[in-house]
Amino acid sequence: MTEESGNKWVLMVTAQTPTNIAVIKYWGKRDEKLILPINDSISVTLDPSHLCTTTSVAVSPDFTHDRMWLNGKEISLSGGRFQNCLREIRSRASEVEDDEKGIKITKKDWEKLHVHIASYNNFPTAAGLASSAAGFACLVFSLAKLMNLKEDQSKLSSIARQGSGSACRSLFGGFVKWIMGKEKNGSDSVAVQLADENHWDDLVIIIAVVSSRQKETSSTSGMLETVETSMLIQHRAKEVVPKRIIQMEEAIKKRDFPSFAHLACADSNQFHAVCLDTTPPIFYMNDTSHRIISCVEKWNRSEGTPQVAYTFDAGPNAVLISHNRKTAAHLLQRLLFYFPPNSDTDLNSYVIGDKTILQDAGIQDMKDVEALAPPPEIKDNIPTHKYKGDVSYFICTRPGRGPVLLTDSSQALLDHKTGLPK
Amino acid sequence: MTEESGNKWVLMVTAQTPTNIAVIKYWGKRDEKLILPINDSISVTLDPSHLCTTTSVAVSPDFTHDRMWLNGKEISLSGGRFQNCLREIRSRASEVEDDEKGIKITKKDWEKLHVHIASYNNFPTAAGLASSAAGFACLVFSLAKLMNLKEDQSKLSSIARQGSGSACRSLFGGFVKWIMGKEKNGSDSVAVQLADENHWDDLVIIIAVVSSRQKETSSTSGMLETVETSMLIQHRAKEVVPKRIIQMEEAIKKRDFPSFAHLACADSNQFHAVCLDTTPPIFYMNDTSHRIISCVEKWNRSEGTPQVAYTFDAGPNAVLISHNRKTAAHLLQRLLFYFPPNSDTDLNSYVIGDKTILQDAGIQDMKDVEALAPPPEIKDNIPTHKYKGDVSYFICTRPGRGPVLLTDSSQALLDHKTGLPK
Repeated sequence: MTEESGNKWVLMVTAQTPTNIAVIKYWGKRDEKLILPINDSISVTLDPSHLCTTTSVAVSPDFTHDRMWLNGKEISLSGGRFQNCLREIRSRASEVEDDEKGIKITKKDWEKLHVHIASYNNFPTAAGLASSAAGFACLVFSLAKLMNLKEDQSKLSSIARQGSGSACRSLFGGFVKWIMGKEKNGSDSVAVQLADENHWDDLVIIIAVVSSRQKETSSTSGMLETVETSMLIQHRAKEVVPKRIIQMEEAIKKRDFPSFAHLACADSNQFHAVCLDTTPPIFYMNDTSHRIISCVEKWNRSEGTPQVAYTFDAGPNAVLISHNRKTAAHLLQRLLFYFPPNSDTDLNSYVIGDKTILQDAGIQDMKDVEALAPPPEIKDNIPTHKYKGDVSYFICTRPGRGPVLLTDSSQALLDHKTGLPK
Repeated sequence: MTEESGNKWVLMVTAQTPTNIAVIKYWGKRDEKLILPINDSISVTLDPSHLCTTTSVAVSPDFTHDRMWLNGKEISLSGGRFQNCLREIRSRASEVEDDEKGIKITKKDWEKLHVHIASYNNFPTAAGLASSAAGFACLVFSLAKLMNLKEDQSKLSSIARQGSGSACRSLFGGFVKWIMGKEKNGSDSVAVQLADENHWDDLVIIIAVVSSRQKETSSTSGMLETVETSMLIQHRAKEVVPKRIIQMEEAIKKRDFPSFAHLACADSNQFHAVCLDTTPPIFYMNDTSHRIISCVEKWNRSEGTPQVAYTFDAGPNAVLISHNRKTAAHLLQRLLFYFPPNSDTDLNSYVIGDKTILQDAGIQDMKDVEALAPPPEIKDNIPTHKYKGDVSYFICTRPGRGPVLLTDSSQALLDHKTGLPK
């Protein structure tokens, strides 16, 4: 390592990584430490313009220990999951040269050098929107760039997997499969891209962030309890999911929305079914989640073919995947009809992300929301009930790209001189 | 048939039949018409003092057709389920003689004679408390007495089964098993008593009737959809339930409450899990049901051994089975703490049935409810939320006896002269 006295340096990389939503669910590990799943899973990567993590990683001979800041607040890196990722990446680090700055770091130097990490989510961390998936994917991707790893994206995915299982699927855009693998050491438990984000680009995704006062079971402890106590989970993992994986790959390949929707909904429901079959039972969906499902199911049935697929992760939020912009606009009308915002909420902060869907739905202000007619699939003799305030907000988005490097230094989260958060 | 002109007669029988709650659930038929289940089930019969059906059946040469009144309102008997029960009973009718009234009815006469039936539930029909189980059991039991059937109670149970599956279990008191049977004609699909109501008489049952504005899926169509679409139901019926039946029989035999509670809770949750695994998914439990489960699970865990078992049928109502009077009193304190009545509700109509449990809990009026301290298992740092009005009322009861004849004519629901509702 060339370290000219009086010429201290900080080398930095900033990256942006998307979050993802599983349409064939991951639930249950066969190895807790290596985070190896009991079945394959398939996800859709979400557009990072609306949901993503940005991470800056920096190295400097001045840094005395590894440090990390999440959304501006320093957090501990002592957890096993962080340590596993850092160790795996360091062991694969390559030589780095920066002639301009007069920096040369050898493979051996990386063993002694410390890093600073700053990470930021462009969405509320506590909202249950898979922030750990985007977070660990971004940590691994940015460190791999900083340390000049030669490994391909799938290899990186198996490192990210050791931070948070679903993080491995955030290393790619579009449609991604996490192959469970067979090896004991997890080397073949990696993510692969099934199709990129342009393959099926008319899909529109609306996320309903559902208000909840329940404390939720963490997915780590939840899936452990399911594997230990559910009498149905092994049947799901061994008999049901393998068939669905084949069918889902085919549906994505052919852009067959009815099959895609049928499989995604059924698999989300089955995941929540095995949670309920756990002792003690785990409830992630609440009455609002149930009402959103009923609204979608009723509409899909009345149309004779699915307009929208729903899927729920380890929380009450609904991820609704529409066939195209037109069905998305009709979906948003239905959602705003049943779940109008509280009177003190501004429409502009109630529907966020891609606001053109709101325009397509012909909704400009709260008066338009109030004027929404009941959906035609509702029978006239049934009084419609509205659930004001039961949804916190909606995010309109779409399938999106994988991780990218951000070269504009204004987007860096660490100061290029001090290596501390800006 | 001796029918002296000018001397018209009405012959009548009145019976009372309990309802029952399954602790190993029946869900799914292998024959829709004969109502043959895909697995055995086990139930506890509930004390008819608090929940029962009373039915009067009468025969007279004056009756021109079969008629039935339910809770005072005439209903149609044309449904297949009523017709099946009536046909099965008529075909087994025996000679009846009443010397006092000068009546003699031959086996052949029964083919031409019509019956009047009046039925009354001592609990709200719409509350989702298995009124059809008690109803069909009472219909079959009372008609069998009227028509002097020689068949034993298990044979009668297989007739009641054709009215409503779970009705077959209401032909016995105490603990009852419905054997699924193997025969195509259903002849071996009968209920048998495992133990009578005195075998384990310290159990106390509290039913929370949960307010709901959702329209529920009927259990008939729900279980059909589950069998047709769930990928988990067959595994449940073939692999899981048979083992649980053996374990539950053993737990009942030994009065082993921890095993009983563990099995009952797990099986209730698994039944709701396969409902959720149905396309479209079926939700019977709501947020209030979930909260009751959480309350019980938290308490059971803190005590190290189960105090209370919970089980939910095709609706949001919780049936809570306490180990003994003491735990029932503690349970009622917890329930009233979390789910106090609306301010305009009288405590006397909020806790009904066996009110001595309320006394044991030291609760005499609403002031005592308001003064209830949070349960000790709640950690001090978590603010407790109360759910006022989310429960409509509580019923305190216990395991109870099977069907009985009521000989006091004042309890008859039909006039002994006209054969019409009183």
